[in-house]
Amino acid sequence: MKCEACDASAKPLSPSKIESFMQEVGEWSLIQDSGKQKLQRVFHTHNYAKSIAFTNAIAQLAETANHHPLIIVEYSTVTVEWWSHKIDGLHKNDFIMAAKTSDLL
Amino acid sequence: MKCEACDASAKPLSPSKIESFMQEVGEWSLIQDSGKQKLQRVFHTHNYAKSIAFTNAIAQLAETANHHPLIIVEYSTVTVEWWSHKIDGLHKNDFIMAAKTSDLL
Repeated sequence: MKCEACDASAKPLSPSKIESFMQEVGEWSLIQDSGKQKLQRVFHTHNYAKSIAFTNAIAQLAETANHHPLIIVEYSTVTVEWWSHKIDGLHKNDFIMAAKTSDLL
Repeated sequence: MKCEACDASAKPLSPSKIESFMQEVGEWSLIQDSGKQKLQRVFHTHNYAKSIAFTNAIAQLAETANHHPLIIVEYSTVTVEWWSHKIDGLHKNDFIMAAKTSDLL
């Protein structure tokens, strides 16, 4: 699937849709952060060079889709969080980006 | 100044030393995170490409010194945290790295 346009008029996914999409991205967790639902996954890369290479690959993916995650790099751990800022919640796009992120490592 | 070897036998800096070094890195904040003291600065880069370029520059600095910070990238904001894992606190090296990080942007 590809990302589709998401603007402020889009609605966050319903709980049942989220439950259904979560099964497609099994290694990602659904978290609440300041009242917003986000997808989060902690990746273990084994070393710093791989963490930075992975970060660059995610950044390239993000720029291509014009949709940007939060990335936390701490030595051999890269934490990635996807959500849609414009709707302060989860859009189908976030699940697409999460699946594509997992494919990069 | 250059980083010096830091091992588990090194002691965290005294409060008065920290107070003195903080004046050398005025734009950095002293934070407490899970009982550890860290240096934190939030950089505003204006766009994502600059955030990623800055992250790569920090990573290169970190690899050269074999001392690695936590980096959080969120679109045009890059948050950097320095502390010394081996002593669970602040070493002079962290202030040196903080100053060098500021020089990269």
